[in-house]
Amino acid sequence: MSWVLRAGDLPDLSRGAAFLGTGGGGDPYVGQLMAAEAIHRHGELTMVSPEELDDGARVIPVSMMGAPSVMMEKIPSGAEAITALSSLERILGSRATHTMPVECGGINSMVPLAVAAARGIPVVDADGMGRAFPELQMETFTLFGVHGSPLVIGTERGEHIVIDTDADNKRMEDLARAMAIRLGGMALLASYSMTAAQVRQSAIPGTVSLALALGRVLKAAREDHRPLEGALDEALAGTVYGAPVHLVDGKVVDVERRTEGGFTIGVARLADDEGGVELRFQNENLLAERDGRVLAIAPDLICLVEADSYEPITSERLRYGQRVRVVAIPAPAIMRTPDGLRLFGPTAFGIDRHHTPIVGACAAAARHRTDRKRE
Amino acid sequence: MSWVLRAGDLPDLSRGAAFLGTGGGGDPYVGQLMAAEAIHRHGELTMVSPEELDDGARVIPVSMMGAPSVMMEKIPSGAEAITALSSLERILGSRATHTMPVECGGINSMVPLAVAAARGIPVVDADGMGRAFPELQMETFTLFGVHGSPLVIGTERGEHIVIDTDADNKRMEDLARAMAIRLGGMALLASYSMTAAQVRQSAIPGTVSLALALGRVLKAAREDHRPLEGALDEALAGTVYGAPVHLVDGKVVDVERRTEGGFTIGVARLADDEGGVELRFQNENLLAERDGRVLAIAPDLICLVEADSYEPITSERLRYGQRVRVVAIPAPAIMRTPDGLRLFGPTAFGIDRHHTPIVGACAAAARHRTDRKRE
Repeated sequence: MSWVLRAGDLPDLSRGAAFLGTGGGGDPYVGQLMAAEAIHRHGELTMVSPEELDDGARVIPVSMMGAPSVMMEKIPSGAEAITALSSLERILGSRATHTMPVECGGINSMVPLAVAAARGIPVVDADGMGRAFPELQMETFTLFGVHGSPLVIGTERGEHIVIDTDADNKRMEDLARAMAIRLGGMALLASYSMTAAQVRQSAIPGTVSLALALGRVLKAAREDHRPLEGALDEALAGTVYGAPVHLVDGKVVDVERRTEGGFTIGVARLADDEGGVELRFQNENLLAERDGRVLAIAPDLICLVEADSYEPITSERLRYGQRVRVVAIPAPAIMRTPDGLRLFGPTAFGIDRHHTPIVGACAAAARHRTDRKRE
Repeated sequence: MSWVLRAGDLPDLSRGAAFLGTGGGGDPYVGQLMAAEAIHRHGELTMVSPEELDDGARVIPVSMMGAPSVMMEKIPSGAEAITALSSLERILGSRATHTMPVECGGINSMVPLAVAAARGIPVVDADGMGRAFPELQMETFTLFGVHGSPLVIGTERGEHIVIDTDADNKRMEDLARAMAIRLGGMALLASYSMTAAQVRQSAIPGTVSLALALGRVLKAAREDHRPLEGALDEALAGTVYGAPVHLVDGKVVDVERRTEGGFTIGVARLADDEGGVELRFQNENLLAERDGRVLAIAPDLICLVEADSYEPITSERLRYGQRVRVVAIPAPAIMRTPDGLRLFGPTAFGIDRHHTPIVGACAAAARHRTDRKRE
């Protein structure tokens, strides 16, 4: 069923999307400003589910690629994405009836909203992973044979760059990344043009409304002083995700971070009573280990929030001394199949580990434990 | 007047083009093989002058960009350029009636021949500089407001990349260079699509026939044991170039060379009786200095040949111990205007020198000197 997204929803959506973004997907505040400005100027947005799409629909996702560290200094206006979309429409010879996010995240949940508002078109409530991942080929769309090409990058000067690698979405990523680097470390783009049938087959549905719900839950849990995991457990019940697992509460004692190859890459160390946990990220949090033992690993979601406010922390905002909580969430089943693991799993990031189930206290147990402490 | 180019002409053309290429423009032998194969398969080529073009002609130059050092290891098939041309034609909505070189050089004089043979279209006997230069915006086309965009790169896998920076040919170079680097250090492309009127206004005419004539002169001078400068003087008389000047005969005693930013960059030192001459290159030879005094500088041509064979030596083939002769030739006048010097002069290469006339023994003097020695 279609629903209306208002400017007042953006802080919650932004928070929830950043949570699902697992460290990547861009800064929530920057994204929120971009979408708020567009809605303020052009009006509220209509969100539709994949099932509601007309068979003749042409869905063209818009997104940003690059290092989130760069996005904080070179803030996009949104016009770059409209340039990209218009140029792709000229190539395809048809206009977009809808746009859609390719991932959840502070920026990439918001860019489609800004473009949709400016264009007066609805947004599909779905995406290609239900989380964030650093590379363009890492989409459930790829699993179902959808071509990312032709991909179009738009620039702040109204220039455009078209990359057409036919069926090879990984190669498309390689070439687009080179361009994003030359453009200063990030780029806004339109890609993965799809029919309604392709969206219904390949997208993960309901992820925008889920992000909005999660954003509300995080805020309510903070205000009501409720334990995080119990609140998350309720919000995720009945979705395509598994039950959330409490990994660690700790203090950030070290952050190594660099902008390399168009990504924000690094390692953070969290200290707790039992020693510590090491967290590896490439834009997104990819691996959490304690003493060399894997606690959680991609494609499962490794979500970091401030211990007291439950506000998500993105990789580029990790700082020494922050007190954080790490929660892991099993990714949708489609991403944990053999094909899914090849595309989204540890080896896709050059991490020499097998995918293993999340280790920690599951939400129900954590809730129980918290309840017992209160007695 | 139109003329026919045969496979048998290619060794001379290749030699002469490499001479005008002043160190850059790619390896003569690789280029020759590419064009010979195409002519062998598809037949002889028709060359036409800019004046002969129909007013409705659509001239689309094809070329290679990148580091010549890379081209020697990753030899292009020519199909990449046809992919690029076809893709650009689709964007423009019209077919190329002719192709044309953008510069003189071992590869870039040959790529258009290979494409023309495969397509069965004539080649315009002209180019955009009458020599070689490392960057895409460095074309007399730019001086007359011709847009290089849309530029299309084709790959050996049939992929294509479109770059459209509207009127900004320097920005087009920047973005295309990033792509060439990601593609392994070089790329084949179609750009600077022009009408007949634009070609007549902006191209340097007759540079293919000049390269062919020079190639014959170099060979004849070697076989007849004639002094190089006198032979060149005759070949260049009546052209848009100035009179050749003998700069130095010397032995290569040092070569620093690296592949950087998609270019072959370095310095060579030549020792002679008077000390030595230092030669700076970025693909092409850009500056010859003796004890800090400029002997010749871009955009004037600094041509290097083997002392005994008069065979041109490209930057990537410079070696310790080679005995070489360096001849400088004043560039066409259009390239030495204030606008020309901004585009092609020392500052365009980050060289902190003013453009100064060539210093050395001019050909007439050299010939005279040689004649006196014989007496």
